[in-house]
Amino acid sequence: MATRAKLTESEAADRLAIRELLDAYAHCADHRDAEGQKALFTEDTRFAVFMDGENTSPTYVLHGREALTPIFDDLNRYDVTTHFNGQNTVTVAGDRGAGELYTIAHHVFTEDGVRQIMIASLRYYDTYTRVGGDWFFAQRELILDWSETRRLAAAAAP
Amino acid sequence: MATRAKLTESEAADRLAIRELLDAYAHCADHRDAEGQKALFTEDTRFAVFMDGENTSPTYVLHGREALTPIFDDLNRYDVTTHFNGQNTVTVAGDRGAGELYTIAHHVFTEDGVRQIMIASLRYYDTYTRVGGDWFFAQRELILDWSETRRLAAAAAP
Amino acid sequence: MATRAKLTESEAADRLAIRELLDAYAHCADHRDAEGQKALFTEDTRFAVFMDGENTSPTYVLHGREALTPIFDDLNRYDVTTHFNGQNTVTVAGDRGAGELYTIAHHVFTEDGVRQIMIASLRYYDTYTRVGGDWFFAQRELILDWSETRRLAAAAAP
Repeated sequence: MATRAKLTESEAADRLAIRELLDAYAHCADHRDAEGQKALFTEDTRFAVFMDGENTSPTYVLHGREALTPIFDDLNRYDVTTHFNGQNTVTVAGDRGAGELYTIAHHVFTEDGVRQIMIASLRYYDTYTRVGGDWFFAQRELILDWSETRRLAAAAAP
Repeated sequence: MATRAKLTESEAADRLAIRELLDAYAHCADHRDAEGQKALFTEDTRFAVFMDGENTSPTYVLHGREALTPIFDDLNRYDVTTHFNGQNTVTVAGDRGAGELYTIAHHVFTEDGVRQIMIASLRYYDTYTRVGGDWFFAQRELILDWSETRRLAAAAAP
Repeated sequence: MATRAKLTESEAADRLAIRELLDAYAHCADHRDAEGQKALFTEDTRFAVFMDGENTSPTYVLHGREALTPIFDDLNRYDVTTHFNGQNTVTVAGDRGAGELYTIAHHVFTEDGVRQIMIASLRYYDTYTRVGGDWFFAQRELILDWSETRRLAAAAAP
């Protein structure tokens, strides 16, 4: 691990801005704000999805911010989603950054009158770029580590 | 997202103190320290609970720190709880702050000899206030996004 | 909670380095990098495991970095793991630190052709020490709050 004597005020600001970028993605997803979600990406962004885990070939790759529309619109079929973010590790050098983020994405839906939950355990390998003072996703590689679908019996009212 | 050139040492301290406030709430909850939990709130705090998700009417609203006692005491019926905190986003201006926090609260209990778990997927919309150098919850709005109750089969000993 | 007027650049660096230590542990675990994981500990580290929760006697205690090998090798029997880190609280004084970390560790495996998941809800009480500029685990106390094993039905392809 790199030895670091101090965290300068500008590096701390960069790290906070990148963490806010990661969390804004989750907030927009869970609020079905597809336009807000797309605005977090560069116009020529690359978004690769690995449904079979790490060190496999991508299941599909999307090029450009506009190509993300169907992905984010797809969330509309869920009653509620929770993109729960865990740890992220980031390195920053000038106007570029790279990092990993753990996310467990919960998707609640109703099928044939049965309430269910689909859980996707994800890790994102990202590159970030600063344009005009703001940070954007230049690339996201979404790794699906495991997933689960099961019936969801709501808690009884307390 | 606001452009930020640097994160000053005082703003960094405020952000850390607010994060510690959020995590102290979880720690006190999971240790059944109701007095410690109440001490994180201002005396005239407002605590609103939305059991039907965002953009609904509150299920109930509590006024004042002392009114929180039954809520926190209610945790005593669980064998163990885990208030697992994810991402939080915060804005700070002077002695006031506001933010959102993701929490998945796990409640393990035994009923009729059957071990069960109740999971509540929560988001908190909070306002924070600094009084005498320390940060407190001025208001918490607890949103229940979804919940689940199921049997809990413990892992076999390794 | 301690009143703090500012977070100095060196304290911020220490806190970041310790958080990176915690997250490196998870990354190494999930990538079956046992050597990398061991390298995060001091040579004379102490690792105590409490399978019956807090305020109990340790189930076992390991002394020294090399004694950790079987623990980390044991992860090899899982198809995939996700060590999902939540909140951590840390205090730092000079070259020593102490803290608590919430982790929900997910272990996916296949037994008799049936895919299953074992979930362990953990909290770590740690002490950290700085040696030669880098931070290491001087001690970890792993508390198992609750665990679960269940069948894992993967999500259908979207």
